[in-house]
Amino acid sequence: MTEDEAVLHANEAFYAALNAKDIVAMEAVWARDAPIACIHPGWNVLAGSEQVMASWRAILANPNQPRVVSGGERVQVEGEVAVVICREMVDGAPLAATNVFVRETGAWRMLHHHSSAIALV
Amino acid sequence: MTEDEAVLHANEAFYAALNAKDIVAMEAVWARDAPIACIHPGWNVLAGSEQVMASWRAILANPNQPRVVSGGERVQVEGEVAVVICREMVDGAPLAATNVFVRETGAWRMLHHHSSAIALV
Repeated sequence: MTEDEAVLHANEAFYAALNAKDIVAMEAVWARDAPIACIHPGWNVLAGSEQVMASWRAILANPNQPRVVSGGERVQVEGEVAVVICREMVDGAPLAATNVFVRETGAWRMLHHHSSAIALV
Repeated sequence: MTEDEAVLHANEAFYAALNAKDIVAMEAVWARDAPIACIHPGWNVLAGSEQVMASWRAILANPNQPRVVSGGERVQVEGEVAVVICREMVDGAPLAATNVFVRETGAWRMLHHHSSAIALV
């Protein structure tokens, strides 16, 4: 598996956890050592595992949370950090996402997620 | 100057170039070697210096482009990459931004910018 493939695998694990509404799998996606952050569509910045994981618990517990289909991934690995930029489709609406990963004990773990709506103009 | 300060300095140079509507200064902010990307508020992903710089030329040439005031910066340096998460105020509207920098020949240069509106709920 190339480094890019390993990063894409981590990126897929994030969307798989989201769509499975599996909070344990979601927690496993995120970095343990580095301070994490998250910007959900339209939300303010969430910083630190307490805020970030509370948001995921709420999202994954929401019975109306639609599936998120990701695609068009672009991967950029720079040393111990990797940036994935991708599209998301949520309930027919397109979004753009930035997913930053950091290598911790050999595994690519999510450091930051930023997703926002694409306004079709 | 600490590493965090050097990253914040690069982050400030980005907003200074934007507010000065100085395309030469804006080009100097961005990475030369690494493939850059940009997600403006509501826009689709722009990838590569041609697309990214064309967008900045259009934005900086727009006489109605308001000032962007940044604040609340959080810096995370991981080796050769740094992530700045900050707030932006544009024409009274709050946005959240992710700015990723990469170290190139000793200088922190922007690899990716993602900015999106915060919907007040």
